[in-house]
Amino acid sequence: MAIILGIDPGSRFTGYGLIKQQGMKFEYLGSGCIKMGEKPMAERLKIIFQGVTQLIEQYQPDSFAIEQVFMARNPDSALKLGQARGAAMVAASLQSLDVFEYSARQVKQAVVGTGGADKSQVQHMVKNFLKLPGTPQADAADALAIAICHGHSQQHLIKLSGQASKTVRGRLRR
Amino acid sequence: MAIILGIDPGSRFTGYGLIKQQGMKFEYLGSGCIKMGEKPMAERLKIIFQGVTQLIEQYQPDSFAIEQVFMARNPDSALKLGQARGAAMVAASLQSLDVFEYSARQVKQAVVGTGGADKSQVQHMVKNFLKLPGTPQADAADALAIAICHGHSQQHLIKLSGQASKTVRGRLRR
Repeated sequence: MAIILGIDPGSRFTGYGLIKQQGMKFEYLGSGCIKMGEKPMAERLKIIFQGVTQLIEQYQPDSFAIEQVFMARNPDSALKLGQARGAAMVAASLQSLDVFEYSARQVKQAVVGTGGADKSQVQHMVKNFLKLPGTPQADAADALAIAICHGHSQQHLIKLSGQASKTVRGRLRR
Repeated sequence: MAIILGIDPGSRFTGYGLIKQQGMKFEYLGSGCIKMGEKPMAERLKIIFQGVTQLIEQYQPDSFAIEQVFMARNPDSALKLGQARGAAMVAASLQSLDVFEYSARQVKQAVVGTGGADKSQVQHMVKNFLKLPGTPQADAADALAIAICHGHSQQHLIKLSGQASKTVRGRLRR
């Protein structure tokens, strides 16, 4: 059993999603959006940091997954996004959580089955996958999708290591 | 009397500089470089956050000045720089310090007298200005220059507000 916190940081809103994973079974724990509004940047970063810290203290997740950004639109938005990511990652790192990063493509692939899916497809699939009564808002859905992606990849690693040990055993038999 | 902490963040090294300002008199308190090395990014951000937090606890600065980045070379380096800035700014904001941002041009203008000065000129002028026995290393010199820039601008604001009230007084007399 593992609890995963997924974070989708932005400079005005930071989505979060929490899921519990047991083998291939995923359970929804919570999701939402930390709103920073139009305050000065240092204030906004404090709100992200404190919000993420509070989520970690409340849910005690085993891992922290965040979207890896390869292609920001421009240096200015990349800098702002970087600051928000920095504030969220510091909160995780200070509480000794391992930080995992996944590209948007990996996240979409894991949740929708195609790396080119759009926002509404991600929302729809997250809703179905976690059997939610309603469609989560976009930031929260993205954060849940990141958490699901991490859960899948961990499952995949367990499978891979199982195959690997079989191969080794097979070789030893020869 | 005011103590100013200047920070020059980077993704591998973060320079810091501390000065004490009394009117137009500036005194050197300390400077150095927080090294993050080649650890995973979340670890590096934790090192910046903890380093800046420790400096604030030790020196109890009245204000925190950081270089404002307008033109990052590319989105990828802007993102990394943003993360480092985010970690440093969160540390300041959590300790209720006001965060001031200055462009590289403003910093150079304040210290060297020209916005187009190079790194070695900044190092040289910082050394002379603070009467240091040796030239500080580049990251530390930049951080000290940011702190000096903030000190100058505060001084300038005091002057301006002095002029402003004189003007008001002058008008009232009419």
